[in-house]
Amino acid sequence: MHRMITRNQAKMILSLQKRKVREENSLFVIEGDKLVREYIIAGNRVSLLAGKPEWIDGESEAVIAGADEIVTVSYEELRRISSLKTPHNVLALAPMAQGDYSDHLLTGRVTPVLEYVQDPGNLGTIIRIAAWFGMSNIVCSPDCVDFYNPKVIQATMGAFMHVSVWYRPLESFLGKAVTEGIPVYGATMDGRSIYDADIGGEGIILFGNESRGISDKLLGYVTRRITIPGPAKPLAGIESLNVSMAAAIVCSEFARRARR
Amino acid sequence: MHRMITRNQAKMILSLQKRKVREENSLFVIEGDKLVREYIIAGNRVSLLAGKPEWIDGESEAVIAGADEIVTVSYEELRRISSLKTPHNVLALAPMAQGDYSDHLLTGRVTPVLEYVQDPGNLGTIIRIAAWFGMSNIVCSPDCVDFYNPKVIQATMGAFMHVSVWYRPLESFLGKAVTEGIPVYGATMDGRSIYDADIGGEGIILFGNESRGISDKLLGYVTRRITIPGPAKPLAGIESLNVSMAAAIVCSEFARRARR
Repeated sequence: MHRMITRNQAKMILSLQKRKVREENSLFVIEGDKLVREYIIAGNRVSLLAGKPEWIDGESEAVIAGADEIVTVSYEELRRISSLKTPHNVLALAPMAQGDYSDHLLTGRVTPVLEYVQDPGNLGTIIRIAAWFGMSNIVCSPDCVDFYNPKVIQATMGAFMHVSVWYRPLESFLGKAVTEGIPVYGATMDGRSIYDADIGGEGIILFGNESRGISDKLLGYVTRRITIPGPAKPLAGIESLNVSMAAAIVCSEFARRARR
Repeated sequence: MHRMITRNQAKMILSLQKRKVREENSLFVIEGDKLVREYIIAGNRVSLLAGKPEWIDGESEAVIAGADEIVTVSYEELRRISSLKTPHNVLALAPMAQGDYSDHLLTGRVTPVLEYVQDPGNLGTIIRIAAWFGMSNIVCSPDCVDFYNPKVIQATMGAFMHVSVWYRPLESFLGKAVTEGIPVYGATMDGRSIYDADIGGEGIILFGNESRGISDKLLGYVTRRITIPGPAKPLAGIESLNVSMAAAIVCSEFARRARR
């Protein structure tokens, strides 16, 4: 029998919904049976596993062995400490693990770069898309939503394990790319059609904020503006695509070209 | 001065979150300043406009004139009757308007068809994508989420005005397409790469349920299975793309081919 979650542990889990607390403790929350299982099976350890007793009893030894500490939690308590409206059977605390960043990571590959993307669902979705197309890094402006936000982790559906997300001031980052001759593609409303644009296997693809797009400041670093062609005549209410849909389509086109 | 919303009107708006009530009254709810404005400016009338007094006072005559009745509503009341967590300044009741369906609508064009898509955000996103790529019809199985669900309308971001969504039993619908020689593409995990597949300007693209994909029953009608190529070796947690992302990428590829 495992002991029940303590009041302090519950308090800690709740407080980890705040970015500041996550950073102070270098811990983040992973929720859901499938996500927790896959995280551990992929070779990662979690510091705490809080699950419904029946979930813990039914779980494989390989998963149980991946936790430093295991506690039981009632459905009511899980609901209280979960960031989801309808919680699953388990959540886990995991140590943040950030590798060392190197600018050279960007050479010879395609890397999505995000300016001020605010919505956790959008960042999570873009991470999932990047993983699908084998893009293993994303660079974010420091004011983007936090990678370790529980809603981001959730929206990646496991892809957060396969993509490194780096927070960097984008002016110096893009400036360096331009200096080194790496193409900086910018997803805008007035660029060349992505289907016709000169797209290669190396470059940065810059996506802007949900409502404002790419700022004028950063547009100055864009060397090739690209656009997803829309309806022949403008339609009310659909001036643009959502940033995560645009990322899906643009990344698909980059992947298609790279296969040639 | 407009009079305040009545208790019965507030009750009606709330009850329209239920599909049954929407169908009995042939009414649906449109929320948000931008959406309501665009809906009316596009030439549609609304039967009721419930807005904060300052919104109504500041709104253009063209919008105000598009409502049969206008009532004011406090922020607290708006919050209570809204389907959104953070409501905007206005919501409107509009009559459902369904044109006449004809199978011939499907000839000479590309039409997404959805089996048992449950999530309102996914349907809304797919409608937005279809509108973007000039696909003006979507066919849904009868058990898909309702087009007039407020979360669907919201997620389309105005695109609901440009796409007709039809609910049809898919076995007979797809059977007819096959008989008439219209290609039925099915988005599966084991098909031909969309980048290499034989894709034309006419056909049906069938997308399946969020977790189950296309049912075996309907797979029998699929004449060409297509797949978005993913990572070279399987990655834990990303066995597939979300259905709305997949629709974005597949519809983009169909649009690209049609431009040639």
